[in-house]
This record gives sequence, C-alpha cells and structure tokens, in this order.
Amino acid sequence: MAPERYFEDFTIGETFRSGSWTIDSRQIKAFASEFDPQPQHLDEAAAAGGFFGGLVASGWHTAALTIRLVVLGEMRIAGGFVGSGLDDFQWFRPVRPGDTLRVESQVFEIRQSISRRDQGIVRLKVATLNQHDSPVLTLVVNLVVPRRTGAMK
Amino acid sequence: MAPERYFEDFTIGETFRSGSWTIDSRQIKAFASEFDPQPQHLDEAAAAGGFFGGLVASGWHTAALTIRLVVLGEMRIAGGFVGSGLDDFQWFRPVRPGDTLRVESQVFEIRQSISRRDQGIVRLKVATLNQHDSPVLTLVVNLVVPRRTGAMK
Repeated sequence: MAPERYFEDFTIGETFRSGSWTIDSRQIKAFASEFDPQPQHLDEAAAAGGFFGGLVASGWHTAALTIRLVVLGEMRIAGGFVGSGLDDFQWFRPVRPGDTLRVESQVFEIRQSISRRDQGIVRLKVATLNQHDSPVLTLVVNLVVPRRTGAMK
Repeated sequence: MAPERYFEDFTIGETFRSGSWTIDSRQIKAFASEFDPQPQHLDEAAAAGGFFGGLVASGWHTAALTIRLVVLGEMRIAGGFVGSGLDDFQWFRPVRPGDTLRVESQVFEIRQSISRRDQGIVRLKVATLNQHDSPVLTLVVNLVVPRRTGAMK
C-alpha cells in the first residue's frame, strides 16, 4: 500500500489510477430509488422512450462511484480525502448497465492555505472513463491536505 | 402536483423549494461503506480524532440527498431532470447525524441551445441548507430542458 501523503509530497503533473467497477441495472435502480427517483434510472420500459433511449445511471451515482474509485485507488492522503469544492464538473455521456468505470487523477495546482499554515490545497483533475476509455465525467476537486507536523513548528 | 415544465415555462428569478430530510448515523455509514469508505464517515471513535471532530456525512452523500430533495420538490420538468454539468460546487460545513436538510433553487440564466433547436439550458443556483438555515452545499446546475413540441415545427 502506498504511504500516506502530506501536502509537501505532491508534485504538479503526478497522476494516479484506480481499480475498476462494473455497474449493473440492479445497482442503478437501487441508487436511483434512494437518491434520484426518475424513470430513466428506475424502469427499462419508461427509459426506452426517454432522453437516453434506455436505462442509465444517475449522474450522481457516477459521481459517487468516482469517489469510491479514488478513495480505494493509488493515492492515500494523511487524514483522508477532504474536499472543499469542485469546478468544471461535466457529464459527457451516459453510463449504462454493464459499463466498467475507472478513474484517472492528475495534480495540476498546489497552493499553501493563506488562513491555515498547517494545511494546503491540492487541485486534481479527475476523469472517470468507461471501458472504451471515453470520459463519462470529468471534474476538478480542491482537496484540503495537511502539512507534515514538522512544518507547523 | 405542479404541472411539468418546458423550457418556455421558466423565468429568471423563480425559486423552488423542497421538503426536508433528516440524516442519521446509520444512513451516513451505509452510504460511506458503499461509496466513500473513510473513517470520518464510518466510525465515531476514529472520526472524533479527525478533521471534523466527529462523524460527518460524505460530501457526496449530501450531494445525493440534494438531488433527491430537488427531484421530489416543487419543480417538475418534462422528461425529467437531465443535467449536463455543475459549476461553483462548494461544501461549506459538515453534515452531522441529526441534521435536517432542505433545498432552495433559483433560476438565474435561461438560454436556447445552439446545436439543438428542440431544447434549451436552464441554469439553477441550488443551496442545500441545514436546520439553522446555514448552507452546507451550494452549486450551479445546467439543466437540459425540452421545448414544447409546438416549438419544433
């Protein structure tokens, strides 16, 4: 397992990969019934006549699977993943039953926090790709990352 | 129940409300074990020593509950809610067991699609508030909304 990283351990351009996850219609319907109860995520017949022409995962389900893949992926952060916000969040194409997702993340900005000397912000470009290597979701996440204790003294 | 809206039915400045949802530690742990398996969302004792000083909901759980509240709220859209992306997504404060969330949305931009004459984009500012009326999450969502059939002829 990779060691836990502190703020000082990140370098611009570094990339991180994840494992993969295959989604099925049962998962799509279970998530949707709890969080996004709409016909295009719940019912094949109704979905066939809708915007996507078939059952698709809630975009928020895709987002939740993205964080799962990141948290269980190559990158480990001291104190865990703490996000303050997201930018440029875009759904590119639907996720359908049988699709297999994976995530690639790249560090593109690193900055010391102004208000908190013991932490900094690491900005990651995150792309969730399907089995054809086509993006289904891309976003930028601002992570709050602690400095090593030594830096606080 | 409110009638389904088409693109032409939206007006800048309109606001929409939702019902409310009270979150508990069981829900927080169930979501986290599936999508965001980190100690601050799974284990009270470990969370007490962490960044938030206690168990908190995954920020993605808060986001998923936000879409639930919107989908089941005052606004209904012909063909359902279809988002193309998000901007200005910011988590303001943690959501803890016992917090009660509700959502307020406001239309702030309406534009005809250039590539698709049969649809347009409605941009909504969405704020998820806790029981103290303090924002826990704010974001802008770009919704793809169909025009009335008559407008396509």
